[in-house]
Amino acid sequence: MSTAAIVVIGNEILSAKVVDENGPWLARELRSLGVDLRRIETVPDEVPVIVDSLKRALGSARWVFTSGGIGPTHDDVTVAAVAQCFGRRVVPDERILSSLRAHFGERLNAARRRLAEVPEGAAIDWCPGSLFPVISVENVAVLPGPPVLFREGFARIRDRYRAAPIFTRALYFNIGEGSLAEHLDAAVAEFPAVAIGSYPRFDDADYRVKVTFDGRDEDQVRRAAAFLRARIPPEAVLREE
Amino acid sequence: MSTAAIVVIGNEILSAKVVDENGPWLARELRSLGVDLRRIETVPDEVPVIVDSLKRALGSARWVFTSGGIGPTHDDVTVAAVAQCFGRRVVPDERILSSLRAHFGERLNAARRRLAEVPEGAAIDWCPGSLFPVISVENVAVLPGPPVLFREGFARIRDRYRAAPIFTRALYFNIGEGSLAEHLDAAVAEFPAVAIGSYPRFDDADYRVKVTFDGRDEDQVRRAAAFLRARIPPEAVLREE
Repeated sequence: MSTAAIVVIGNEILSAKVVDENGPWLARELRSLGVDLRRIETVPDEVPVIVDSLKRALGSARWVFTSGGIGPTHDDVTVAAVAQCFGRRVVPDERILSSLRAHFGERLNAARRRLAEVPEGAAIDWCPGSLFPVISVENVAVLPGPPVLFREGFARIRDRYRAAPIFTRALYFNIGEGSLAEHLDAAVAEFPAVAIGSYPRFDDADYRVKVTFDGRDEDQVRRAAAFLRARIPPEAVLREE
Repeated sequence: MSTAAIVVIGNEILSAKVVDENGPWLARELRSLGVDLRRIETVPDEVPVIVDSLKRALGSARWVFTSGGIGPTHDDVTVAAVAQCFGRRVVPDERILSSLRAHFGERLNAARRRLAEVPEGAAIDWCPGSLFPVISVENVAVLPGPPVLFREGFARIRDRYRAAPIFTRALYFNIGEGSLAEHLDAAVAEFPAVAIGSYPRFDDADYRVKVTFDGRDEDQVRRAAAFLRARIPPEAVLREE
Protein backbone atom coordinates (compact mmCIF):
# COMPACT_ATOMS: atom_id res chain seq x y z
CA MET A 1 0.00 0.00 0.00
CA SER A 2 1.22 3.44 -0.86
CA THR A 3 0.70 5.45 2.33
CA ALA A 4 2.26 8.64 3.66
CA ALA A 5 2.54 10.79 6.78
CA ILE A 6 3.62 14.42 7.10
CA VAL A 7 5.47 15.90 10.07
CA VAL A 8 5.25 19.70 10.04
CA ILE A 9 7.89 21.24 12.32
CA GLY A 10 7.58 24.78 13.55
CA ASN A 11 6.78 26.84 16.63
CA GLU A 12 5.63 29.59 14.25
CA ILE A 13 2.65 27.47 13.16
CA LEU A 14 1.64 26.45 16.69
CA SER A 15 1.93 30.07 17.86
CA ALA A 16 -0.24 31.17 14.90
CA LYS A 17 2.38 33.48 13.38
CA VAL A 18 2.18 31.52 10.14
CA VAL A 19 -0.54 29.33 8.64
CA ASP A 20 0.98 26.10 7.33
CA GLU A 21 0.64 25.89 3.55
CA ASN A 22 2.85 22.86 3.02
CA GLY A 23 0.64 20.24 4.65
CA PRO A 24 -2.47 21.03 2.55
CA TRP A 25 -0.36 21.47 -0.60
CA LEU A 26 1.40 18.14 -0.16
CA ALA A 27 -1.92 16.43 0.69
CA ARG A 28 -3.19 17.50 -2.76
CA GLU A 29 -0.01 16.34 -4.48
CA LEU A 30 -0.08 12.96 -2.75
CA ARG A 31 -3.72 12.51 -3.60
CA SER A 32 -3.06 13.18 -7.27
CA LEU A 33 -0.21 10.65 -7.14
CA GLY A 34 -2.50 7.98 -5.66
CA VAL A 35 -0.82 8.03 -2.25
CA ASP A 36 -3.02 7.57 0.82
CA LEU A 37 -2.13 10.23 3.43
CA ARG A 38 -2.60 8.74 6.91
CA ARG A 39 -1.72 11.61 9.25
CA ILE A 40 -0.32 15.11 9.55
CA GLU A 41 1.36 16.11 12.81
CA THR A 42 2.41 19.67 13.57
CA VAL A 43 5.02 19.74 16.33
CA PRO A 44 7.36 22.30 17.94
CA ASP A 45 11.09 22.77 17.24
CA GLU A 46 12.09 20.20 19.88
CA VAL A 47 14.19 17.17 18.99
CA PRO A 48 12.55 14.60 21.32
CA VAL A 49 9.04 15.57 20.18
CA ILE A 50 10.06 15.43 16.50
CA VAL A 51 11.78 12.03 16.94
CA ASP A 52 8.65 10.65 18.59
CA SER A 53 6.50 11.99 15.77
CA LEU A 54 8.84 10.58 13.09
CA LYS A 55 8.78 7.13 14.65
CA ARG A 56 4.98 7.16 14.76
CA ALA A 57 4.85 8.39 11.15
CA LEU A 58 7.19 5.58 10.03
CA GLY A 59 5.07 3.08 11.94
CA SER A 60 1.86 4.18 10.26
CA ALA A 61 2.90 4.90 6.67
CA ARG A 62 5.39 3.91 4.00
CA TRP A 63 6.54 7.41 3.06
CA VAL A 64 7.27 10.21 5.51
CA PHE A 65 7.79 13.88 4.70
CA THR A 66 9.07 16.57 7.03
CA SER A 67 8.40 20.27 6.50
CA GLY A 68 10.56 22.94 8.11
CA GLY A 69 13.37 23.20 10.64
CA ILE A 70 16.12 23.27 7.97
CA GLY A 71 18.70 26.07 8.06
CA PRO A 72 21.62 27.60 9.92
CA THR A 73 19.95 28.86 13.13
CA HIS A 74 19.36 27.43 16.61
CA ASP A 75 15.72 26.57 15.88
CA ASP A 76 16.59 24.41 12.85
CA VAL A 77 16.71 20.97 14.44
CA THR A 78 15.09 18.66 11.88
CA VAL A 79 18.34 17.11 10.61
CA ALA A 80 19.38 16.27 14.17
CA ALA A 81 15.96 14.73 14.85
CA VAL A 82 15.95 12.60 11.68
CA ALA A 83 19.49 11.39 12.46
CA GLN A 84 18.48 10.49 16.00
CA CYS A 85 15.35 8.71 14.77
CA PHE A 86 17.53 6.37 12.69
CA GLY A 87 20.40 6.19 15.21
CA ARG A 88 22.80 7.91 12.80
CA ARG A 89 25.41 10.62 13.34
CA VAL A 90 25.12 14.09 11.80
CA VAL A 91 28.03 14.57 9.35
CA PRO A 92 29.00 17.20 6.77
CA ASP A 93 28.16 16.25 3.19
CA GLU A 94 31.14 17.06 0.94
CA ARG A 95 29.05 17.78 -2.15
CA ILE A 96 26.83 20.27 -0.32
CA LEU A 97 29.92 21.84 1.31
CA SER A 98 31.59 22.43 -2.04
CA SER A 99 28.41 23.96 -3.44
CA LEU A 100 28.25 26.26 -0.37
CA ARG A 101 31.94 27.15 -0.85
CA ALA A 102 31.28 28.08 -4.46
CA HIS A 103 28.30 30.24 -3.44
CA PHE A 104 29.53 31.94 -0.26
CA GLY A 105 33.34 32.02 -0.79
CA GLU A 106 34.88 33.71 2.24
CA ARG A 107 31.46 34.30 3.80
CA LEU A 108 31.14 30.54 4.49
CA ASN A 109 31.07 30.79 8.29
CA ALA A 110 30.23 28.12 10.88
CA ALA A 111 26.49 28.85 10.68
CA ARG A 112 26.35 28.47 6.89
CA ARG A 113 28.36 25.23 7.13
CA ARG A 114 25.41 23.81 9.10
CA LEU A 115 23.50 23.75 5.78
CA ALA A 116 25.85 20.90 4.73
CA GLU A 117 25.08 18.75 7.78
CA VAL A 118 23.06 15.61 7.04
CA PRO A 119 22.32 12.31 8.76
CA GLU A 120 25.16 9.92 7.87
CA GLY A 121 24.39 7.99 4.68
CA ALA A 122 21.56 10.33 3.58
CA ALA A 123 20.65 10.52 -0.10
CA ILE A 124 20.92 13.97 -1.70
CA ASP A 125 18.70 15.22 -4.54
CA TRP A 126 19.79 18.52 -6.03
CA CYS A 127 17.32 21.15 -7.14
CA PRO A 128 18.88 23.06 -10.05
CA GLY A 129 19.94 26.54 -8.96
CA SER A 130 19.04 25.99 -5.29
CA LEU A 131 21.23 25.83 -2.19
CA PHE A 132 18.77 23.44 -0.55
CA PRO A 133 19.00 19.87 -1.81
CA VAL A 134 16.36 17.38 -0.68
CA ILE A 135 17.83 15.11 2.00
CA SER A 136 16.35 11.61 2.29
CA VAL A 137 17.02 8.93 4.88
CA GLU A 138 15.39 5.61 4.02
CA ASN A 139 11.73 6.55 3.43
CA VAL A 140 11.90 9.97 5.10
CA ALA A 141 12.25 13.01 2.81
CA VAL A 142 13.34 16.23 4.53
CA LEU A 143 11.95 19.40 2.91
CA PRO A 144 12.54 23.05 3.88
CA GLY A 145 9.67 25.07 5.40
CA PRO A 146 9.42 28.13 3.13
CA PRO A 147 6.65 27.15 0.66
CA VAL A 148 8.64 28.11 -2.44
CA LEU A 149 11.51 25.83 -1.37
CA PHE A 150 9.18 23.09 -0.16
CA ARG A 151 7.44 22.89 -3.54
CA GLU A 152 10.69 23.08 -5.49
CA GLY A 153 12.12 20.26 -3.36
CA PHE A 154 9.06 18.03 -3.71
CA ALA A 155 8.99 18.56 -7.49
CA ARG A 156 12.53 17.13 -7.59
CA ILE A 157 11.46 13.81 -5.95
CA ARG A 158 7.78 13.65 -6.93
CA ASP A 159 8.02 10.77 -9.40
CA ARG A 160 9.32 8.49 -6.68
CA TYR A 161 5.84 8.29 -5.15
CA ARG A 162 3.54 7.57 -8.10
CA ALA A 163 1.03 4.82 -7.22
CA ALA A 164 -2.20 3.32 -8.56
CA PRO A 165 -4.73 6.15 -8.94
CA ILE A 166 -7.54 6.80 -6.44
CA PHE A 167 -10.92 7.30 -8.16
CA THR A 168 -13.57 9.51 -6.64
CA ARG A 169 -17.18 10.46 -7.21
CA ALA A 170 -19.40 12.85 -5.28
CA LEU A 171 -23.16 13.23 -4.86
CA TYR A 172 -24.72 16.49 -3.66
CA PHE A 173 -28.02 16.39 -1.75
CA ASN A 174 -30.58 18.96 -0.64
CA ILE A 175 -31.61 16.78 2.33
CA GLY A 176 -29.78 16.47 5.66
CA GLU A 177 -27.53 13.71 7.03
CA GLY A 178 -30.32 12.49 9.31
CA SER A 179 -32.29 11.43 6.22
CA LEU A 180 -29.29 9.94 4.44
CA ALA A 181 -27.67 8.00 7.29
CA GLU A 182 -29.49 4.66 6.94
CA HIS A 183 -28.81 4.60 3.19
CA LEU A 184 -25.16 5.46 3.75
CA ASP A 185 -24.92 2.56 6.22
CA ALA A 186 -26.31 0.24 3.53
CA ALA A 187 -23.77 1.53 0.97
CA VAL A 188 -20.89 1.17 3.44
CA ALA A 189 -21.91 -2.45 4.11
CA GLU A 190 -22.31 -3.26 0.41
CA PHE A 191 -19.03 -1.69 -0.81
CA PRO A 192 -16.29 -2.39 1.71
CA ALA A 193 -13.55 -1.42 -0.78
CA VAL A 194 -14.98 2.08 -1.21
CA ALA A 195 -14.34 4.82 1.37
CA ILE A 196 -17.59 6.77 1.79
CA GLY A 197 -17.63 10.18 3.46
CA SER A 198 -20.55 12.43 4.33
CA TYR A 199 -19.99 16.20 4.65
CA PRO A 200 -22.82 18.48 5.76
CA ARG A 201 -22.81 22.23 5.20
CA PHE A 202 -24.27 24.79 7.58
CA ASP A 203 -23.42 27.92 5.62
CA ASP A 204 -25.02 29.27 2.44
CA ALA A 205 -23.72 26.51 0.12
CA ASP A 206 -26.19 25.40 -2.58
CA TYR A 207 -26.34 21.87 -1.09
CA ARG A 208 -26.83 20.44 2.40
CA VAL A 209 -24.70 17.29 2.22
CA LYS A 210 -21.91 16.12 -0.09
CA VAL A 211 -21.22 12.39 -0.10
CA THR A 212 -17.91 11.19 -1.55
CA PHE A 213 -16.88 7.73 -2.77
CA ASP A 214 -13.16 6.95 -3.02
CA GLY A 215 -11.40 3.80 -4.10
CA ARG A 216 -8.77 2.24 -6.34
CA ASP A 217 -11.38 0.17 -8.24
CA GLU A 218 -13.17 2.62 -10.53
CA ASP A 219 -16.08 0.28 -11.20
CA GLN A 220 -16.73 -0.22 -7.47
CA VAL A 221 -16.65 3.55 -6.91
CA ARG A 222 -19.18 4.10 -9.68
CA ARG A 223 -21.41 1.31 -8.45
CA ALA A 224 -21.35 2.57 -4.85
CA ALA A 225 -22.50 6.03 -5.99
CA ALA A 226 -25.23 4.50 -8.14
CA PHE A 227 -26.32 2.25 -5.26
CA LEU A 228 -26.81 5.22 -2.91
CA ARG A 229 -28.44 7.33 -5.60
CA ALA A 230 -31.00 4.62 -6.34
CA ARG A 231 -32.15 4.65 -2.71
CA ILE A 232 -32.80 8.41 -2.53
CA PRO A 233 -35.74 10.28 -4.10
CA PRO A 234 -34.43 11.84 -7.36
CA GLU A 235 -35.57 15.34 -6.36
CA ALA A 236 -33.18 15.20 -3.36
CA VAL A 237 -30.10 14.65 -5.59
CA LEU A 238 -28.75 17.97 -6.86
CA ARG A 239 -25.83 16.64 -8.94
CA GLU A 240 -23.14 14.01 -9.34
CA GLU A 241 -19.47 14.78 -10.06
CA MET B 1 1.19 25.87 32.54
CA SER B 2 -1.62 26.56 30.17
CA THR B 3 -0.97 24.23 27.23
CA ALA B 4 -3.22 22.77 24.54
CA ALA B 5 -3.32 20.18 21.78
CA ILE B 6 -5.73 19.90 18.85
CA VAL B 7 -6.88 16.64 17.26
CA VAL B 8 -8.41 17.27 13.83
CA ILE B 9 -10.47 14.29 12.69
CA GLY B 10 -11.36 13.80 9.06
CA ASN B 11 -10.55 11.71 6.01
CA GLU B 12 -11.65 14.71 3.90
CA ILE B 13 -8.63 16.71 5.09
CA LEU B 14 -6.11 13.91 4.54
CA SER B 15 -7.55 13.23 1.08
CA ALA B 16 -7.29 16.97 0.27
CA LYS B 17 -11.02 17.46 -0.40
CA VAL B 18 -11.09 20.15 2.27
CA VAL B 19 -8.39 22.40 3.73
CA ASP B 20 -8.68 22.45 7.52
CA GLU B 21 -9.62 25.92 8.76
CA ASN B 22 -10.27 24.98 12.38
CA GLY B 23 -6.69 24.18 13.42
CA PRO B 24 -5.23 27.54 12.29
CA TRP B 25 -8.27 29.44 13.60
CA LEU B 26 -8.07 27.81 17.03
CA ALA B 27 -4.28 28.31 17.10
CA ARG B 28 -4.92 32.07 16.79
CA GLU B 29 -7.62 32.03 19.47
CA LEU B 30 -5.45 30.06 21.90
CA ARG B 31 -2.54 32.38 21.29
CA SER B 32 -4.67 35.43 22.05
CA LEU B 33 -5.83 33.71 25.25
CA GLY B 34 -2.25 33.07 26.36
CA VAL B 35 -2.47 29.30 25.85
CA ASP B 36 0.63 27.52 24.54
CA LEU B 37 -0.40 25.16 21.69
CA ARG B 38 1.87 22.10 21.76
CA ARG B 39 0.68 20.02 18.80
CA ILE B 40 -1.94 19.58 16.10
CA GLU B 41 -2.63 16.08 14.79
CA THR B 42 -4.82 15.42 11.77
CA VAL B 43 -6.04 11.82 11.77
CA PRO B 44 -8.55 9.69 9.83
CA ASP B 45 -12.09 8.70 10.92
CA GLU B 46 -10.84 5.59 12.74
CA VAL B 47 -11.53 5.03 16.43
CA PRO B 48 -8.21 3.35 17.40
CA VAL B 49 -6.15 6.06 15.68
CA ILE B 50 -8.22 8.83 17.30
CA VAL B 51 -7.96 7.23 20.76
CA ASP B 52 -4.18 6.98 20.38
CA SER B 53 -4.00 10.61 19.32
CA LEU B 54 -6.24 11.76 22.21
CA LYS B 55 -4.10 9.93 24.75
CA ARG B 56 -0.96 11.54 23.37
CA ALA B 57 -2.65 14.95 23.36
CA LEU B 58 -3.71 14.53 27.01
CA GLY B 59 -0.18 13.45 27.88
CA SER B 60 1.39 16.52 26.31
CA ALA B 61 -1.03 19.32 27.13
CA ARG B 62 -3.56 20.44 29.72
CA TRP B 63 -6.40 21.23 27.31
CA VAL B 64 -7.40 19.11 24.34
CA PHE B 65 -9.76 20.09 21.52
CA THR B 66 -11.20 17.81 18.86
CA SER B 67 -12.48 19.08 15.52
CA GLY B 68 -14.88 17.03 13.41
CA GLY B 69 -16.43 13.59 13.37
CA ILE B 70 -19.68 14.71 15.10
CA GLY B 71 -23.01 13.85 13.50
CA PRO B 72 -25.45 11.11 12.59
CA THR B 73 -23.52 9.19 9.91
CA HIS B 74 -21.19 6.18 9.87
CA ASP B 75 -18.06 8.35 9.59
CA ASP B 76 -18.87 10.33 12.76
CA VAL B 77 -16.87 8.43 15.35
CA THR B 78 -15.40 11.10 17.63
CA VAL B 79 -17.84 10.57 20.52
CA ALA B 80 -17.07 6.84 20.50
CA ALA B 81 -13.33 7.57 20.48
CA VAL B 82 -13.48 10.09 23.34
CA ALA B 83 -15.59 7.66 25.40
CA GLN B 84 -13.11 4.84 24.75
CA CYS B 85 -10.17 7.11 25.61
CA PHE B 86 -11.65 7.65 29.09
CA GLY B 87 -13.06 4.11 29.47
CA ARG B 88 -16.64 5.41 29.54
CA ARG B 89 -19.81 4.13 27.86
CA VAL B 90 -21.66 6.09 25.17
CA VAL B 91 -25.11 7.04 26.50
CA PRO B 92 -28.00 9.21 25.31
CA ASP B 93 -28.14 12.63 26.97
CA GLU B 94 -31.71 13.38 27.99
CA ARG B 95 -31.41 17.16 27.60
CA ILE B 96 -30.06 16.86 24.04
CA LEU B 97 -32.73 14.26 23.23
CA SER B 98 -35.53 16.56 24.33
CA SER B 99 -34.08 19.42 22.29
CA LEU B 100 -33.91 17.09 19.26
CA ARG B 101 -37.51 15.99 19.90
CA ALA B 102 -38.64 19.61 19.96
CA HIS B 103 -36.79 20.32 16.71
CA PHE B 104 -37.46 17.20 14.65
CA GLY B 105 -40.80 15.97 16.05
CA GLU B 106 -41.80 12.83 14.16
CA ARG B 107 -38.68 13.05 11.98
CA LEU B 108 -36.51 12.07 14.98
CA ASN B 109 -35.24 8.78 13.54
CA ALA B 110 -32.45 6.51 14.81
CA ALA B 111 -29.77 8.45 12.92
CA ARG B 112 -30.80 11.80 14.39
CA ARG B 113 -30.93 10.27 17.88
CA ARG B 114 -27.18 9.67 17.53
CA LEU B 115 -26.74 13.43 17.93
CA ALA B 116 -27.75 12.93 21.58
CA GLU B 117 -25.11 10.27 22.28
CA VAL B 118 -22.30 11.42 24.58
CA PRO B 119 -19.62 9.79 26.71
CA GLU B 120 -21.20 8.98 30.08
CA GLY B 121 -20.82 11.91 32.51
CA ALA B 122 -19.92 14.42 29.79
CA ALA B 123 -20.52 18.13 30.46
CA ILE B 124 -22.85 19.88 28.00
CA ASP B 125 -22.56 23.54 27.00
CA TRP B 126 -25.45 24.83 24.92
CA CYS B 127 -24.99 27.25 22.08
CA PRO B 128 -28.14 29.39 21.84
CA GLY B 129 -30.18 28.40 18.79
CA SER B 130 -27.90 25.51 17.82
CA LEU B 131 -28.56 21.76 17.75
CA PHE B 132 -24.88 21.07 18.50
CA PRO B 133 -23.93 21.64 22.14
CA VAL B 134 -20.24 21.48 23.08
CA ILE B 135 -19.52 18.15 24.76
CA SER B 136 -16.64 18.07 27.25
CA VAL B 137 -15.09 15.14 29.07
CA GLU B 138 -12.58 16.17 31.69
CA ASN B 139 -10.18 18.46 29.78
CA VAL B 140 -11.26 17.37 26.28
CA ALA B 141 -13.70 19.65 24.43
CA VAL B 142 -15.44 18.07 21.44
CA LEU B 143 -16.27 20.53 18.65
CA PRO B 144 -18.04 19.92 15.32
CA GLY B 145 -16.04 20.13 12.07
CA PRO B 146 -18.01 22.65 9.95
CA PRO B 147 -16.14 25.93 10.64
CA VAL B 148 -19.29 27.92 11.44
CA LEU B 149 -20.26 25.39 14.12
CA PHE B 150 -16.69 25.00 15.36
CA ARG B 151 -16.36 28.74 15.99
CA GLU B 152 -19.80 29.02 17.56
CA GLY B 153 -18.95 26.12 19.87
CA PHE B 154 -15.59 27.52 20.89
CA ALA B 155 -17.09 30.95 21.56
CA ARG B 156 -19.38 29.26 24.11
CA ILE B 157 -16.47 27.86 26.15
CA ARG B 158 -13.69 30.33 25.31
CA ASP B 159 -13.48 32.04 28.70
CA ARG B 160 -12.57 28.73 30.33
CA TYR B 161 -9.08 28.91 28.83
CA ARG B 162 -7.89 32.45 29.57
CA ALA B 163 -4.29 32.43 30.86
CA ALA B 164 -1.41 34.84 31.47
CA PRO B 165 -0.72 36.72 28.22
CA ILE B 166 2.18 35.84 25.90
CA PHE B 167 4.13 38.94 24.82
CA THR B 168 5.86 39.08 21.47
CA ARG B 169 8.24 41.33 19.55
CA ALA B 170 9.65 40.94 16.05
CA LEU B 171 12.73 42.29 14.28
CA TYR B 172 12.99 42.38 10.47
CA PHE B 173 16.42 42.14 8.82
CA ASN B 174 17.77 42.64 5.32
CA ILE B 175 20.62 40.18 5.95
CA GLY B 176 20.39 36.38 5.85
CA GLU B 177 20.24 33.78 8.63
CA GLY B 178 23.88 32.84 8.03
CA SER B 179 24.92 36.30 9.25
CA LEU B 180 22.49 36.35 12.17
CA ALA B 181 22.99 32.85 13.55
CA GLU B 182 25.85 33.51 15.99
CA HIS B 183 24.04 36.52 17.45
CA LEU B 184 20.84 34.52 17.78
CA ASP B 185 22.78 31.83 19.66
CA ALA B 186 24.03 34.52 22.06
CA ALA B 187 20.49 35.83 22.60
CA VAL B 188 19.11 32.31 23.15
CA ALA B 189 21.82 31.68 25.78
CA GLU B 190 21.21 35.03 27.52
CA PHE B 191 17.39 34.85 27.64
CA PRO B 192 16.30 31.28 28.45
CA ALA B 193 12.76 32.41 29.31
CA VAL B 194 12.23 33.91 25.85
CA ALA B 195 11.37 31.70 22.83
CA ILE B 196 13.33 33.06 19.87
CA GLY B 197 12.40 32.06 16.32
CA SER B 198 14.12 32.90 13.04
CA TYR B 199 12.09 32.87 9.80
CA PRO B 200 13.80 33.46 6.45
CA ARG B 201 11.91 34.46 3.31
CA PHE B 202 12.81 33.34 -0.20
CA ASP B 203 10.04 35.12 -2.06
CA ASP B 204 9.65 38.84 -2.82
CA ALA B 205 9.02 39.93 0.79
CA ASP B 206 10.61 43.27 1.75
CA TYR B 207 12.83 41.56 4.35
CA ARG B 208 15.08 38.49 4.38
CA VAL B 209 14.65 37.29 7.95
CA LYS B 210 12.07 37.92 10.67
CA VAL B 211 13.16 37.12 14.22
CA THR B 212 10.47 36.75 16.88
CA PHE B 213 10.73 36.90 20.67
CA ASP B 214 7.92 35.35 22.74
CA GLY B 215 7.50 35.09 26.47
CA ARG B 216 5.27 35.70 29.45
CA ASP B 217 7.68 38.26 30.97
CA GLU B 218 7.25 41.41 28.90
CA ASP B 219 10.46 42.97 30.16
CA GLN B 220 12.52 39.90 29.23
CA VAL B 221 10.97 39.87 25.74
CA ARG B 222 11.84 43.55 25.23
CA ARG B 223 15.36 43.05 26.54
CA ALA B 224 16.00 40.03 24.33
CA ALA B 225 15.01 42.02 21.23
CA ALA B 226 17.19 44.94 22.30
CA PHE B 227 20.10 42.56 23.02
CA LEU B 228 19.99 41.11 19.49
CA ARG B 229 19.45 44.49 17.90
CA ALA B 230 22.53 45.91 19.64
CA ARG B 231 24.74 43.22 18.07
CA ILE B 232 23.63 43.86 14.46
CA PRO B 233 24.70 46.82 12.26
CA PRO B 234 21.80 49.34 12.37
CA GLU B 235 21.51 49.43 8.55
CA ALA B 236 20.64 45.70 8.58
CA VAL B 237 17.58 46.24 10.83
CA LEU B 238 14.54 47.21 8.78
CA ARG B 239 12.01 47.56 11.59
CA GLU B 240 10.81 46.36 14.99
CA GLU B 241 7.21 45.48 15.80
